Amino acid sequence: MALDQYTPEEPISSIATALAPAALGIVRVSGKGCIELVSKVFSRPKALLEAPGNTIVYGWILGGPSTSSGTPAIDEVMCAVYRAPKSYTGEDMVEIFCHGGPSVVTAIQNLMLKSGFRQANRGEYTFRAYINGKTDLTKAEAVREIIDSHTDDSRSHAAGRLAGSLYKEIDSIKKLLVDTLAAIEVEIEYPEDEETIADTFNREDLEQAVARLESLEASWQGEKLYQDGARVVLAGRTNAGKSSLFNAILKEERAIVSDIEGTTRDWLESWAGINGIPVRLFDTAGLRATQDVIEAQGVELSKNLVKDADVVLYLIDSTEGVNKEDEDFIKNCSVPLILVWTKTDKWIASPSARNDEAPSLRGAERRGNPPCTEVSLSAKTGAGLNDLFNKIETILKKGLTTERTQAGLGSARQKAAVSEALESARHALATSADNYTLDAVVQDLEDALDFLGEVTGAITPDDVLGSIFANFCVGK
Amino acid sequence: MALDQYTPEEPISSIATALAPAALGIVRVSGKGCIELVSKVFSRPKALLEAPGNTIVYGWILGGPSTSSGTPAIDEVMCAVYRAPKSYTGEDMVEIFCHGGPSVVTAIQNLMLKSGFRQANRGEYTFRAYINGKTDLTKAEAVREIIDSHTDDSRSHAAGRLAGSLYKEIDSIKKLLVDTLAAIEVEIEYPEDEETIADTFNREDLEQAVARLESLEASWQGEKLYQDGARVVLAGRTNAGKSSLFNAILKEERAIVSDIEGTTRDWLESWAGINGIPVRLFDTAGLRATQDVIEAQGVELSKNLVKDADVVLYLIDSTEGVNKEDEDFIKNCSVPLILVWTKTDKWIASPSARNDEAPSLRGAERRGNPPCTEVSLSAKTGAGLNDLFNKIETILKKGLTTERTQAGLGSARQKAAVSEALESARHALATSADNYTLDAVVQDLEDALDFLGEVTGAITPDDVLGSIFANFCVGK
Repeated sequence: MALDQYTPEEPISSIATALAPAALGIVRVSGKGCIELVSKVFSRPKALLEAPGNTIVYGWILGGPSTSSGTPAIDEVMCAVYRAPKSYTGEDMVEIFCHGGPSVVTAIQNLMLKSGFRQANRGEYTFRAYINGKTDLTKAEAVREIIDSHTDDSRSHAAGRLAGSLYKEIDSIKKLLVDTLAAIEVEIEYPEDEETIADTFNREDLEQAVARLESLEASWQGEKLYQDGARVVLAGRTNAGKSSLFNAILKEERAIVSDIEGTTRDWLESWAGINGIPVRLFDTAGLRATQDVIEAQGVELSKNLVKDADVVLYLIDSTEGVNKEDEDFIKNCSVPLILVWTKTDKWIASPSARNDEAPSLRGAERRGNPPCTEVSLSAKTGAGLNDLFNKIETILKKGLTTERTQAGLGSARQKAAVSEALESARHALATSADNYTLDAVVQDLEDALDFLGEVTGAITPDDVLGSIFANFCVGK
Repeated sequence: MALDQYTPEEPISSIATALAPAALGIVRVSGKGCIELVSKVFSRPKALLEAPGNTIVYGWILGGPSTSSGTPAIDEVMCAVYRAPKSYTGEDMVEIFCHGGPSVVTAIQNLMLKSGFRQANRGEYTFRAYINGKTDLTKAEAVREIIDSHTDDSRSHAAGRLAGSLYKEIDSIKKLLVDTLAAIEVEIEYPEDEETIADTFNREDLEQAVARLESLEASWQGEKLYQDGARVVLAGRTNAGKSSLFNAILKEERAIVSDIEGTTRDWLESWAGINGIPVRLFDTAGLRATQDVIEAQGVELSKNLVKDADVVLYLIDSTEGVNKEDEDFIKNCSVPLILVWTKTDKWIASPSARNDEAPSLRGAERRGNPPCTEVSLSAKTGAGLNDLFNKIETILKKGLTTERTQAGLGSARQKAAVSEALESARHALATSADNYTLDAVVQDLEDALDFLGEVTGAITPDDVLGSIFANFCVGK
């Protein structure tokens, strides 16, 4: 989507709702003359043409493909009419609310494509909102985040960014840098006094800017966890209780996802929300079952799942105790591991039924590997589940230096630009302390401002823009 | 949904779009005070409360579940406000257009349930439209048809019913019966002349009513085919070309469906639109592949698929010819069968490569079974595919006595009521011809009118109503 070749007002159209049977569906159009184009296939063209902005017009979409029955009516719809600049894109828009059958939504979209509209690209509506000054890039990226979010925590942070929390923080840091810049430029213009930079230069603003940029940069690690989620793998011997725990976690903490992905795999996996963190949960039980058939392949897959995990839950049946296989796994596992003693309901209810030995690692130290935590639980009664969730959260949040704030960063792109801005601001701070010339400090501050401009989109190269919007849904 | 216990104005809420990541989603509410209830969790309550009907108000939905970040804002939305009686249900309504992430749509719906709304039942919005006189039952059922339709032909017919074609036809037949009834009642009131019924009674109206009811009743078989679709099964020896044909048909004629069903089965199946008829296409190739593992079960499944088929396509590699296995299948198959000679591109391109014998049944007559048609095709070049589609259509439409019309019946329920009406009308005609008393004819005509009233919902028992709307989507 190179800006120099882009035709912003060209009428575009796309389906904006998921293509599955549902009560309602939406086909969305935007661009110059779009209301006129829709009116040509609408049962009440005059009503549509004369509709004020932000109103809804009832009617039929006409002119479907001719069929054996010969009727040209596609569906009874409501058309929401928006007039520039009061619309999502800032252009004239129509949103056609039709019945939600894939057949009817597709038929209306196909009719639009025959009626003068071009199929919209991914994120093109939001892109137009951006180039028409209706949104900045932090808010635009938040839209995609909201659509993709797996837990309420993730969504809530994205909503904060959409509401402008990050934009305001960036703006406030820019103001500190601009004030510093202005002070130095006064110094350059009117160097009446012979004092050194260190004397006249107000370092406090710049120091505050650096501190806030550091905090912003650090926020990304935590935001990334809530956006992308973490991989948690259940491992252990057959009958250690992996499937029971997998199901118990999903029952309690199933994340908000559609089942649309549905790719068949050789292991079970599902999204779960563990203390608000989206977690992709893997149960390697399926692998074991197929090992007889393609043993080598199964073992390889299992190893890779464990290797790529952020946390491994290694299950041991507490009524059975640890054996050599368990010890080997625990010793050799190089990722953070929680040792989960399962089926505690059995021996807590009837202590005589369990081994005399209390559950313990029995010498399975993890030499040189991350420390291992223990949890006792019963998937049956749910006892110990919260303890497990808290321990998973602790491991996943280890190394996060800041508490999450509304002004956290929302994408790797934003993080990269903030890091560059921070480097320039730090350099400005160091340069000024070393009594270099004022011009060098000015250059650093201007660089920092440019990088911050990239975050919000005030200054952003075309190729960056293209990649931002390419990650959107069509119709947004 | 028994009418005597139903509270029509109770505020109801539900998600109206498919729950999968998409640009937009809709949460829909209806009922007394619903605009006030939404305004309590809306950033611009006054704007919403004062909005005229059929207008759109911009704002934020506030008051989500409190999270670590503490922000109560859920999403930036547009609210469409409708005021009774100008709405889908005939009550006050709000449609909240939010971002289409499952997380955000669910969060808004959950907030509504906490804010005084009850979860709407399946079809409850349309049910309210019906009890508020906004729609009759033929139009209400057409809404569900449109959502579920798999081909443009199916959708187009449902759109015809939604536009009132069936309602008008029923109304016109009712008028003929009412006119007849009125003439007879005049006869009863003023029997000045001693003429027999046969003399005074205008039989033409009644005859026309019977003919049109017959035509309506006959229409259901065809409508059913376009609504429910037919089952077409691909069978044949390994390497006969089943998968190639399966893919070639889907490539050409894939029906409009979402991939959301996604249940794993032991055979391949997909919807295809063959000459506008929705066809559920089965490829038994998958069964063969698993036969080694669970042989008996695979054979059983395969047999059942064939037994339940409306048409079986039995494939024979035209370069190989017929063998004993093929002959046995063709002889014993009791459902309509098309013999498909595959891979014709090979021997048409190089005649010497094929068997000297031209493809033929070589004595595999189907004694006592439906006749079998032959088609030669190449899945590779597509030659013969249209011929195959036409032959499938011919078999599926065999026995359909009427051409499809816009006034076709839309459900088995409607068909049952029309059949009853037809029986009563026929009886009236017979009774009048046999010179019975006028009272008996009056009773028959009144019965016929009652049954026709059931079709449109003018007179409909509660339990019938309940079952109609139970088949709807939630949110419609």
